[in-house]
Amino acid sequence: MSRKGLTTRGRLLSIGLDTLSTVGLAGVTLGNLATTARMSKSGLFAHFSSKEQLQLDLLDEMVRVADKNVVAPAMAAPKGLPRLTALVTNWLGWSRRAGLRGGCPVAAAIFELDDLSGVVRDRVSELDARWRSLLASLVTESVDCGHLTETVDVEQFVWELFGIYLSHHASSRFIRDPKAEIRAHTAFSSLIQRAGARCE
Amino acid sequence: MSRKGLTTRGRLLSIGLDTLSTVGLAGVTLGNLATTARMSKSGLFAHFSSKEQLQLDLLDEMVRVADKNVVAPAMAAPKGLPRLTALVTNWLGWSRRAGLRGGCPVAAAIFELDDLSGVVRDRVSELDARWRSLLASLVTESVDCGHLTETVDVEQFVWELFGIYLSHHASSRFIRDPKAEIRAHTAFSSLIQRAGARCE
Repeated sequence: MSRKGLTTRGRLLSIGLDTLSTVGLAGVTLGNLATTARMSKSGLFAHFSSKEQLQLDLLDEMVRVADKNVVAPAMAAPKGLPRLTALVTNWLGWSRRAGLRGGCPVAAAIFELDDLSGVVRDRVSELDARWRSLLASLVTESVDCGHLTETVDVEQFVWELFGIYLSHHASSRFIRDPKAEIRAHTAFSSLIQRAGARCE
Repeated sequence: MSRKGLTTRGRLLSIGLDTLSTVGLAGVTLGNLATTARMSKSGLFAHFSSKEQLQLDLLDEMVRVADKNVVAPAMAAPKGLPRLTALVTNWLGWSRRAGLRGGCPVAAAIFELDDLSGVVRDRVSELDARWRSLLASLVTESVDCGHLTETVDVEQFVWELFGIYLSHHASSRFIRDPKAEIRAHTAFSSLIQRAGARCE
């Protein structure tokens, strides 16, 4: 990812987000970021008051990057199923297309922080809920547009869609299976067909 | 989990596996285990020569515990779909029923190690492949028994089943959604019905 023209803080957030995507929250500390960014740890304190604050700021940066790369382009698609399909297509494997070396920080955090507590977990939980709510609103919009049947169980649909996303993350990033993409799209097609989609 | 009657090594593996399930591989070090087990770090070296060896031994211990709690009881079910259904039922949320405080170490490792390399990743990859192969063999057995249709795409079936497992892990352990269990079983019922199951 090019970091030309960024402020010092912008450069630190960009480097930190890249690290977060590859090693997870446990690997993101002020000490590690200082080393990677070739800055003194005391210099970093001017930008981030603590490890937790750095992690929270990196999650905010991730939201900014994901909004730009995943959400905004999908919202340009026609309402209903085309928009939902565009969002899912952009979501699958988004981190690499957004220039990060690693995987989705929220997917990783869901498995890293599940048995812990604290402000960072709370923030990830909030982002996860917000994301599920966006997906649910697009499923409901698809029903309202007549693209999906009125009897669809929206929560179950979103739950299964999350499974497709997580299985794609595991198969593409961990197993490095070249069929991950086609498997995910086959599963998504089946999911929307069961929800009454006619034109896929 | 009761540790009465265990050897020192058995007690260390039991404590270490519990830690692994709650904080992931990054949190499992000789130093941390020594503190939790109230032993000297040098005492631990008699049992584990390095952090990597400890992590590998804990993964072996996990396999032993999972075989006993998940696989063996499922194999007592009749061949075909009943056996596959029993395995999936035992697999979902297995770590808590096996007495661990945290989630499935392999599920977490898949997201923790995806962008890293090394012997521990290789071992997790091997366990993951072996597990998928077991699932695939039970799907094939279900086809052979006439419980699922011959046209089922076994790899796609296992891929989607993994998604159900991961979504259940995320919703039960991270979101702590009381509906996680029913959502997973609804998704599994839908998956086997699409594969031609008649009696669910």
